[in-house]
Amino acid sequence: MLRSATKEVVLGHGRRFCLIGERINPTGRKIFQEQLRAGDLSAIERDVHAQVAGGADVLDVNMGVPLTDEPDLLSRAIHLVQELTDAPICIDSSVVEALEAGLAAYRGRALVNSITAEDDRMAAILPLVKKYDAAIIALPNDHDEIPMEADKRLELTAKIVRVATEEYGIAAADIVIDPLAMPIGADTSVVRTTLETISRIRHDFGLNMTLGASNVSFGMPDRHTLGAAFLPMAMHAGLTSAIMDARTPQIVDAVKAADLLLDHDEWGMAWIAAHRKKQAATA
Amino acid sequence: MLRSATKEVVLGHGRRFCLIGERINPTGRKIFQEQLRAGDLSAIERDVHAQVAGGADVLDVNMGVPLTDEPDLLSRAIHLVQELTDAPICIDSSVVEALEAGLAAYRGRALVNSITAEDDRMAAILPLVKKYDAAIIALPNDHDEIPMEADKRLELTAKIVRVATEEYGIAAADIVIDPLAMPIGADTSVVRTTLETISRIRHDFGLNMTLGASNVSFGMPDRHTLGAAFLPMAMHAGLTSAIMDARTPQIVDAVKAADLLLDHDEWGMAWIAAHRKKQAATA
Repeated sequence: MLRSATKEVVLGHGRRFCLIGERINPTGRKIFQEQLRAGDLSAIERDVHAQVAGGADVLDVNMGVPLTDEPDLLSRAIHLVQELTDAPICIDSSVVEALEAGLAAYRGRALVNSITAEDDRMAAILPLVKKYDAAIIALPNDHDEIPMEADKRLELTAKIVRVATEEYGIAAADIVIDPLAMPIGADTSVVRTTLETISRIRHDFGLNMTLGASNVSFGMPDRHTLGAAFLPMAMHAGLTSAIMDARTPQIVDAVKAADLLLDHDEWGMAWIAAHRKKQAATA
Repeated sequence: MLRSATKEVVLGHGRRFCLIGERINPTGRKIFQEQLRAGDLSAIERDVHAQVAGGADVLDVNMGVPLTDEPDLLSRAIHLVQELTDAPICIDSSVVEALEAGLAAYRGRALVNSITAEDDRMAAILPLVKKYDAAIIALPNDHDEIPMEADKRLELTAKIVRVATEEYGIAAADIVIDPLAMPIGADTSVVRTTLETISRIRHDFGLNMTLGASNVSFGMPDRHTLGAAFLPMAMHAGLTSAIMDARTPQIVDAVKAADLLLDHDEWGMAWIAAHRKKQAATA
């Protein structure tokens, strides 16, 4: 369960899929990086509105710009985003101090992005997750190496769950595993491994899961069609959330269709309401 | 394995999905029905070309028009279709005499559509399937009643496999189960039942499966988006084929994307080739 000051979003099997909008992130955006370096956060407003309008339930906020005071930038960005929307936030940084500043600034119950199964990373971040009563995204990889076999990912998931629950008293319901989505262009077997990992984590642990949906199609043509086919398969396997750009209607619509088909949209009301809204918009 | 006089199509887990083009069928097409009643089969040519151009691997041919000599019409249609394309044919009729005439007319190895688990239907059709060395689509329902539980569908599948293999000497590889796709608009749990049925038939029997893909979205808005989300999920569960209208690029592209993501498209060559073809067509 995630929360802003005024809105609650619950992730879970048997529930509507949770879209985490990924756009509030300077990675690969030179103009945005320059603006952030100059302390100008105004571009965030447009991104927040576009992600929410596209259907994002939660917003990922990352302020990772080299040569800036990332903790300060992230806490300012979180204040700003919370003024603009009541969607809960996924606080995204590789810098522990930035995560702490973000958690301190946030009003509600945040999702923290992310830890790995590495001991030092868990030891640095899990106490913050506990202190601020947050939820945590955890990647089942070790020493910066991504395991290519589902077996190893399951083993590292078991380690993360054990450490987080037993050593830090974090509830299993607050652990969101990232089953690791890799580009299909590099090796056509990687998505099968991701789908197998999702099925097995659901079966063995029943945990929530999220992943970076756009990774799968990286480097291939017709990326949106691949994304729109991948997410329904992953949802069928047991994925409960994805970090994605909510501005792509083809992929958002595929998720909404899969929600209906998997019986996560009671009476099909959301599907039919979305259709009427589209009709009204084009009338 | 299906065959025309000159082309082979193999269905199977771990292989490219088989698209069975469904359009050569007068159901719901009044003008086509009138033409067929007058003995005019010329409209078939356009349908064959459209289905093959859209990506159909196999063509379903149904000539069920009331008050006609269906066996004669079906055998003439099969001769015509085999002059127009080398795609194998799925011979589709509820009339036993029409199936027999179709099988006699067909050059190659046909797929017969269909039997149920009813004893009289199996007794009438399975000897023809054996005699003409064909493959058979079988629906796990009994006495015209569609079982709403996966358990019952599995039980009837076991019965069909037992009767077909033990009593008629038909190979399990030549039995294609239709796991029964029902409209999501009637009850939002029906697709989950279909997906569960697919997973369990794959796990328990390892059989090929096909279904009428458009049934799922019947009566709902944005049918193509539902179809494009449903088939990747069903393919992930273990569906190896579908009877569908190959003129819908959104759904055909979703199937091709799922083939790539499930590692049924070696090196992604088919995906990349299809992209180049589209680029060339619009250049």
